[in-house]
Order: sequence, then C-alpha cells, then structure tokens
Amino acid sequence: MSEYVEHSPSGTSVGRVEKQFFTFAADEPLLVESGRSLGPVTLAYETYGRLNASATNAVLVLHALTGDSHAAGYYETSDSKPGWWDLMIGPGKPLDTDRYFIICSNVVGGCMGTTGPASVDPATGRPYGLSFPVITVGDMVQAQKCLIDHLGVGRLLSVVGGSMGGMQVLEWSVRYPDMVRSAVPLATTTKHSALAIAFNEVARQAIMADPAWNGGDYYDGEQPAHGLAVARMIGHITYLSDEAMRQKFDRRLQDRCEISFAFEEADFQVESYLRYQGQKFVDRFDANSFLYVTKAADYFNLESSHGCGSAVAAFAKAQCRFLVASFSSDWLYPTYQSRAMVQAMKKNGLDVSFVELEAKWGHDAFLLPNARLSGMIARFLDRAAADAAKEDARAL
Amino acid sequence: MSEYVEHSPSGTSVGRVEKQFFTFAADEPLLVESGRSLGPVTLAYETYGRLNASATNAVLVLHALTGDSHAAGYYETSDSKPGWWDLMIGPGKPLDTDRYFIICSNVVGGCMGTTGPASVDPATGRPYGLSFPVITVGDMVQAQKCLIDHLGVGRLLSVVGGSMGGMQVLEWSVRYPDMVRSAVPLATTTKHSALAIAFNEVARQAIMADPAWNGGDYYDGEQPAHGLAVARMIGHITYLSDEAMRQKFDRRLQDRCEISFAFEEADFQVESYLRYQGQKFVDRFDANSFLYVTKAADYFNLESSHGCGSAVAAFAKAQCRFLVASFSSDWLYPTYQSRAMVQAMKKNGLDVSFVELEAKWGHDAFLLPNARLSGMIARFLDRAAADAAKEDARAL
Repeated sequence: MSEYVEHSPSGTSVGRVEKQFFTFAADEPLLVESGRSLGPVTLAYETYGRLNASATNAVLVLHALTGDSHAAGYYETSDSKPGWWDLMIGPGKPLDTDRYFIICSNVVGGCMGTTGPASVDPATGRPYGLSFPVITVGDMVQAQKCLIDHLGVGRLLSVVGGSMGGMQVLEWSVRYPDMVRSAVPLATTTKHSALAIAFNEVARQAIMADPAWNGGDYYDGEQPAHGLAVARMIGHITYLSDEAMRQKFDRRLQDRCEISFAFEEADFQVESYLRYQGQKFVDRFDANSFLYVTKAADYFNLESSHGCGSAVAAFAKAQCRFLVASFSSDWLYPTYQSRAMVQAMKKNGLDVSFVELEAKWGHDAFLLPNARLSGMIARFLDRAAADAAKEDARAL
Repeated sequence: MSEYVEHSPSGTSVGRVEKQFFTFAADEPLLVESGRSLGPVTLAYETYGRLNASATNAVLVLHALTGDSHAAGYYETSDSKPGWWDLMIGPGKPLDTDRYFIICSNVVGGCMGTTGPASVDPATGRPYGLSFPVITVGDMVQAQKCLIDHLGVGRLLSVVGGSMGGMQVLEWSVRYPDMVRSAVPLATTTKHSALAIAFNEVARQAIMADPAWNGGDYYDGEQPAHGLAVARMIGHITYLSDEAMRQKFDRRLQDRCEISFAFEEADFQVESYLRYQGQKFVDRFDANSFLYVTKAADYFNLESSHGCGSAVAAFAKAQCRFLVASFSSDWLYPTYQSRAMVQAMKKNGLDVSFVELEAKWGHDAFLLPNARLSGMIARFLDRAAADAAKEDARAL
C-alpha cells in the first residue's frame, strides 16, 4: 500500500467525541515506584475509530507535560478548538481512524479527569495535595497498561507521542515489550538533561514561592495563580526557539508605537504572548499537577531504570520497530539526544528509522503541521499494520 | 611590542581598593531618554592604576546586568573574593594597571552605590521605588560620560565590557565617538532578541508576582525575596549552556544516593545550584534594580536609537577600532549577532577584529579564564596605546 506517499495533511475530523473514565485499583491499590500505593485510580481517556475483531489495530497516543486525553475531535460543536493532535488523528490522517483504533488517556498525576493531587483522597475526604504520591513516567505507563488490558487489547499496533509523551513511548517499549509492535518517540529523550531539569526546577520554585500555594494545600481557597503563570511562561520559552521567536515576534511592540518606559504593561509582543499564555494556563491547569508532571519528567531516566545506567542495556529489553524523530531547532531535547537513543537501539539490532526534521519552531514542532512527519508516521504505521496482518494470517 | 604574545594569565592583584563616589546633576538634573529628569545622581566607581600626564591611558570597564564597580582587587584583606574581573585587571594582566588607568562605575538604576530605585528621592525623603525613571543603556552611558569628564579624561584609550557591559561599549562608540579610541564589546548584541527579552520578562514577572513586591514599595518591610530568587534562577540558566550544565551537573544527585520522591529538597545538583544562586543573590541585589537593569537591556537597540533601524547607519557614527568576541556556546547572544555587528562595522570601513571563541561555558564565558581572549585584549590595547603615543608625539 502506498496511499500515504502522497499523503494530504487535511483528512477529516473524527467529529464529536466524549471523555470516558476507567476506574481500577480500588481493592488492590497500584504500587508506584516510590514504594507507596495509590487507589482507586481513575483514568480519563478517549478513543477514536473502532477496535477490529482481532484487536490488532490499537494505537496508544501519549500526551506531553500538560496535555490531556482530548487528542482529536470536539466535545461540543461550539468548541473553538479541536483536540491537541487533531491534525494527526482522523479519517484519512496519519493516525487514520478509518483503519486504527486510537486511544489517548490523561496521565496519572494530571488534572484533566485522571486521579491526581487535586483529586479527593478517599481516606480523608479532602484533596490529596502533596500527600499524593510522587509519580514517575513508569507509573503513568503502568496505569495505562491497566486501561489497555481493560479495553481488551493484547498488543498495541503502536505507541506514539512527543516530549513527555515520547518518554512514555520509550517506557512502554522496554517495560511491556510483548505488548508493543511499534513505537514512535518524537522530540524526546531517554533521560532529562541538567538543562531540562533546571527549567522545570525554576518553574516549580515559582509555584512554591507563591504564598497561595501554601504547601500544596490551597483547594479551599485560590490557587497559586501568579506562581503557576510564571511557571508556564518559563515553559513556553523552552517550547519555542531563538529563530522561532525572532520570526514570530522579533522586537515588535504590542499595541503601541513607542516603548512605554514603564513596567506594568507589556511593551513587546513576546512579553504580551508570554503573559497571555501564563494567564490562559492558570484557568485550565492545577498547580500541584504541574509540580508532579515536571518531577516525573525530571526523574525519567530509561537508562538507569531499565539498563543499570546503559541505554544499550535498556533497549535490549525492547522488541518493537521504532520511528524516532527530532527537530533541528528543539533545544529542550536536542537531536544529539535522539541520535544517542537510536544508536543504542541499533546496537540491539532493532529496526529503527530516524529523522531529524528541519523545523524552526523549536520543541513544539511535533505539534505543528509537518507534511514530512505526517507521511513518515503514516507509512510507518502502514508497515506495522501489514506485519500485524501477516501474523494474523499465520495465526489462523 | 610583543610582550603579550606569551601572555601569562596570572599577573598580580591590584591589591586593596576603595569604592569612590561622584555626585553630579544636582543643580541641573540629568535628562534621561524617557523624557524625565533625574538629579542629583551619584555614581559609585573604582579606579586602578594611574592616569598618565597626557590622560591618554584611561580604559573604561563596563559591567554586566548585576555587576558593580568592584571589578578588581579587594576591599578588605579578609574578602573571600576579589572584584568580578580580577583575572583581567591588574599589574601584568591584559588590562595592565602598570600601564593603564582603569575605571569601572556602577550603572544608573543599579543598587551598588549608584543612584537607583532604592535610593532616597530628595523630593520625598523616601526611596524612589517605581517612581525612579526607567533608564536606558544610553542613560547609563550619559552618566558615565559625566564621570569621565570629571576625571579629566578627554578620550578613552578603550571601553571594554561583556553582555550588558558590551551594550554600553557599543553605545559609547556611537554616542561619543570623539571620546573613544578603541572598543571591546564581548558576548553582546546590538539589540536584544525576542528570546533574551522573553527571559527577562519572565524574571520580572516572577518579582512582580511576589506580594512582598507591593508595586515596588517594599523598602519599609521585607524585599520580594522569593520572586527575586526565582528571577535570578532564570538568569543563571541563560548564563550557562546545555553542555556546560551536562559537564558541571549532569544528573548527579545532591547529598543523596536516591531520588527523594518529594518536592521540598533538591534532588539534583543543578537544582541545588540554582536554589543557592537565587538565595545568594537576594542578599546582595535590590529587586527593583533588577527590573530596571533588565528593562534597559531589553530596550537596547543601537540600530533604532542611532541608525533609524540600520546597524550600518548606526556604526557610521563610530570612529574607533573594535575587538569583537563571541563565545560558541553563548545562546543568549549567539555568534550570529556578533557577526552581524561586525559586518555593519566593516561596511563603514572600521578597523575590526572578530573572534568566536570556542567555549563550553555559555554566556558567562567572558567572565572566566580564557588565555586566548586575554592575549587578544592585551595585544589590542597595546596597539591602541601605540596609536595614542604616536598621536601624542605628533601633537608635541
């Protein structure tokens, strides 16, 4: 099949979708990596397309730091925006819902329907706050596996995600190798660098410096909005790039002809953009969840958790085919980090395709239209589906 | 003379030095670029070496964002550290105090002895706070010129500085071309990029988000220490580089063998380093001054203020010889920005030496030992001094 060689980035929408919930670990709590336990756990998730009879067409999409289960379509016809990866998921799109059954769930520790620090602790009847156990990427994946089992999928056709979603992809590939036929880690890393940790740490300090944060116990009052906004602004700088910012903003002024010689109002468009992003984020995200997901990303180290410090040893556990993509202007997870993981995969004889995509938009590029990436993902899934069909045929 | 070809980075110390003060603009206030006026103005400054009889050996050193007038030597024998550029200034060092008369003054708007927002407004008897006029790099340089006049120097042998100090160097070269024989802008830019503005804006927002900031009116109580610490942490990330952080910290843990699975204590050395830098800064720097100096850096645009938007037109006003240096891992003011300024200088037929120095330590590299940079600066000043001597001889 070569229908995707001339892949059109358009496709159509999956249309109206609904957030679903799966609750588990009520009787037997989930043991998390810190040694603590958590239960019951509810995962918010969405599915698009239909699971086929042999349950071989399921693709798990994994979201980034502050993403959610709403990857495609819309909840209400009045929604101003579709799900966060709508350009990639839908009929005729790379994650083709006419062919694949797409699953996306919100991570544990998040605040978009999945159990996290803002959830009520059944033991106390009050929100967990900081008593919520610190979560790792491994814990997120462990919870996702419960959902995949529940949905009756024995082996995923693919696991796909960028940034912290890509970390989950990597974790899936070595934690549950039998369950993963192919994997697409995008704009990601096998371990958070000191630079990436540094940005997250400053963002956390901004939240924790806000008196309203109150040691994480703020759910009866106002949330630490100032600190969370600053944290988000820091994040947004890392999602762009020097060149992206120059092209998008340069030194253009915001709604004024002259600099203000004052501090209250934004002079430059880039300042106005960051303030707006900070404010917008406060309305949709929980400050404690931000602490938890950034900590999970910082703790992520596939090499130490699965390979005693060696990436080669870690990927010795993987069995799937990989498509790895980095973006030339991504300075949060630069290409050299993807190259290192690709080398470690290859040393294990794994089937790996790797591409560094020329993109000026920095780390966020994986969320933006990119015909080359779309085509590569479409063809990659097509190959994985062909393999699955062959195996199905042999099994019959 | 070639005594510096085999330049040793050692040299000796200038020894004990004293902060001095120069007050002016008492009767006739300084008119600043915003259109407001300021007076009286006190500049804190230090000098090292002796001004020669013909006053041709004066070198003005210009400090970066949060620097001060204490560039070399020590105040007390018990001081744990010398001035911030002690490795460059002293007998036998590149800025050789046996030959040159070195002057360094704290910028207007600062908080190290020079008039700034923490100073008392004579009109009210209370600290200026935000009623202090917003200051530009041009204003800083205008005030420095008053000091240079006062010291009896008609023409500076050289103006030398890195980062925001480099901006002042560039400003000097086009604002007072008759007074500048040579100029050494290091790790700097003719205009702040959107990325650089973005980092400063987030730092300012961190300060202004701190309730203790109180609209800049906090001098009767505690200063906004939490916000200022976060602002400084952001700054410190930009002063390093991905590679520098990897070499300096990587993922090494701080005083522990295992990650903590908690938020209060630092897990990683890089977190501990940033927290320490933030705390240390709070003890020595005023939060409002941080707002003022970052704003001055953001507003800096030599091209618009001196060339109607053209760097070539701006440098048409310059007459001096330049030594421009950038650092390969500096992503705050990357080399392409230095290259652009060098091209604009060359289009005006100016005598320009340019070097991109291989350095892994990011933007801060200009403050660190670098034998190649030291040698280049020494030789460059030597040439300028030779020129000055020739002119002196002709004038006799």
